[in-house]
Amino acid sequence: MARIAVVAGDGIGPEVVAQARKVLDAVLPGVQATEYDLGAARWHRTKEVLPDSVLTELAGHDAILLGAVGDPTVPPGVLERGLLLKLRFAFDQYVNLRPSRLWSGVAGPLGNVKPGEVDLVVVREGTEGLYAGAGGSLHRDTPAEVATEESLNTRHGVERVIRDAFARAARRERRKVTLVHKTNVLTHAGSLWARTFDAVAAEHPDVATEYQHVDAAAMFLVTQPQRYDVVVTDNLFGDILTDIAAAVTGGIGLAASGCINPEGAYPSMFEPVHGSAPDIAGQGIADPVAAVLSAALLLEQLGHSESAARVNAAVAAELASRVPGVPLRTEEVGDRLAAHAVS
Amino acid sequence: MARIAVVAGDGIGPEVVAQARKVLDAVLPGVQATEYDLGAARWHRTKEVLPDSVLTELAGHDAILLGAVGDPTVPPGVLERGLLLKLRFAFDQYVNLRPSRLWSGVAGPLGNVKPGEVDLVVVREGTEGLYAGAGGSLHRDTPAEVATEESLNTRHGVERVIRDAFARAARRERRKVTLVHKTNVLTHAGSLWARTFDAVAAEHPDVATEYQHVDAAAMFLVTQPQRYDVVVTDNLFGDILTDIAAAVTGGIGLAASGCINPEGAYPSMFEPVHGSAPDIAGQGIADPVAAVLSAALLLEQLGHSESAARVNAAVAAELASRVPGVPLRTEEVGDRLAAHAVS
Ligand SMILES: CC(C)[C@H](C(=O)O)[C@@H](O)C(=O)O
Ligand SMILES: CC(C)[C@H](C(=O)O)[C@@H](O)C(=O)O
Repeated sequence: MARIAVVAGDGIGPEVVAQARKVLDAVLPGVQATEYDLGAARWHRTKEVLPDSVLTELAGHDAILLGAVGDPTVPPGVLERGLLLKLRFAFDQYVNLRPSRLWSGVAGPLGNVKPGEVDLVVVREGTEGLYAGAGGSLHRDTPAEVATEESLNTRHGVERVIRDAFARAARRERRKVTLVHKTNVLTHAGSLWARTFDAVAAEHPDVATEYQHVDAAAMFLVTQPQRYDVVVTDNLFGDILTDIAAAVTGGIGLAASGCINPEGAYPSMFEPVHGSAPDIAGQGIADPVAAVLSAALLLEQLGHSESAARVNAAVAAELASRVPGVPLRTEEVGDRLAAHAVS
Repeated sequence: MARIAVVAGDGIGPEVVAQARKVLDAVLPGVQATEYDLGAARWHRTKEVLPDSVLTELAGHDAILLGAVGDPTVPPGVLERGLLLKLRFAFDQYVNLRPSRLWSGVAGPLGNVKPGEVDLVVVREGTEGLYAGAGGSLHRDTPAEVATEESLNTRHGVERVIRDAFARAARRERRKVTLVHKTNVLTHAGSLWARTFDAVAAEHPDVATEYQHVDAAAMFLVTQPQRYDVVVTDNLFGDILTDIAAAVTGGIGLAASGCINPEGAYPSMFEPVHGSAPDIAGQGIADPVAAVLSAALLLEQLGHSESAARVNAAVAAELASRVPGVPLRTEEVGDRLAAHAVS
């Protein structure tokens, strides 16, 4: 029986997570879910972000389903570093998986790209790089202030995520991996990534490879997103590129993500890419599709591929049937998805 | 009499620079141009990238016009670090200026954005951040390898580029500056940028301001590029965002840039954003518009605003008259632009 920790979070988080759970319950009866009230609300109440005891409890679950945390009233970094990144690092979620598809029925912003043509997945490194928190400042608030941020990259960390990307590509139809970095400027980290990529590629003669600088990749994601299959890149580049990929496939309202510890030594975490959207919270109009697609990634990770496929099919049907301009109701979308997934 | 150093460079560099010079000569008769053969070809011949003597000579000019340098046969980083970045740093070109306009006649990739609606300029910091070259590696080529890249940010460097951005915004119609960073993860550098931005903003009550995380900005550049006026950001974020801005306004074939030392203590450098494009070099089919627009930025910087405006008008007329599908000839475009600019 799958044991899921649920962090609904703030803003629209609880609204969309409720639909994701509805769908999960439908396709996998008997899921045990425990709720954790982490996020801005708890921080305001207790000034605690993630007590160690809660971290230990979370570790005992098979997976975490997260809605969205954050609120303009919380200082930048508090919940990001204290909760989201803390979990990614504590649970060694080194594969930050972000698929982007242009679904039928979704009007993307690109005039020359048709539904069905874009189906890519970004394998973003999740535990290293500029997210390591290795920065500091001196002479703060004086004219002499200097602030640093350090990108830390290890062969260990780079190799394992590149291996994951190749393994995923080998299971896909086009079998292609694109490495994105900035080897011409970030020569040390870039060289480590490129050499490791070449070494792993040599073990996969069946997988095609290419390299692109991050600025070029950002451009091609807009002009030719069809060209990508699996993209592997570092933590910060992945953060930026996945938002572009989401934008060209209909927006972050549809973008799912998984922070995955592939070995299962720790729970993996699944969350929509969108934030807590305080402007529309409480109105029942948030699109739960990204949360539901994140639940599908969760099912996949726990080995329930068939259930995951049924959720994806339900989403495909839902999106194909949407009429532009007709406002959606969060609950109704969840009901339809749950019903379709078991039909 | 303006003294210009010309670095035509590799691939299509010489072809497009020839047109930029044609236009410059037309609108500003008597420009003195000296050619410098830096780039991949020279490196192959001499294994030298930029001798100190040449650097000193370049320093004696009012501006540098650069085509494109690079070639797949040169190892990554050699020309980038040794020439382009060397010049930006040696000549303290801290304002890396990248305007993006969706010109009439240009079919951008975005279905819902019409010509005339996008007119933004990115003021990218040019002398700090992850471009400082402060990185290294240990235990190279072993399983224990670690590679670092450090982003260095000073109050001095951040403040001067933010001041430039506000000064530019104050001269524009919409008078708005967007700061882009990643304050929720890069908390030290992000805080320095945000505090400095707020301090400078307080001196400009007439300029509207906003802040966006880099991932959100990357997305909004695709979904709502119209919202931006002046964007100020760090060196690496600027590298990525300007390629997105170029992509949504018709591609890097039209994107100009200036690496500017606003005080004029050193020469500023003007170059198209595109590279040397070896695949189409020598065929006379490269679009010289980006190089010509870079020459217009050069004219502007040297105080010849009226000539700059005439070059921009010539480009506007050229682009408005283009018939989709009709191949262009580099020389003919240059001839038309030069003729129009003085008509
Ligand atoms: C909220 C923030 C820390 C996070 C990140 O930068 O990874 C977010 O942008 C994301 O992509 O999940
Ligand atoms: C060639 C490279 C060093 C350069 C940069 O990263 O700045 C280029 O991408 C640019 O944008 O001018």
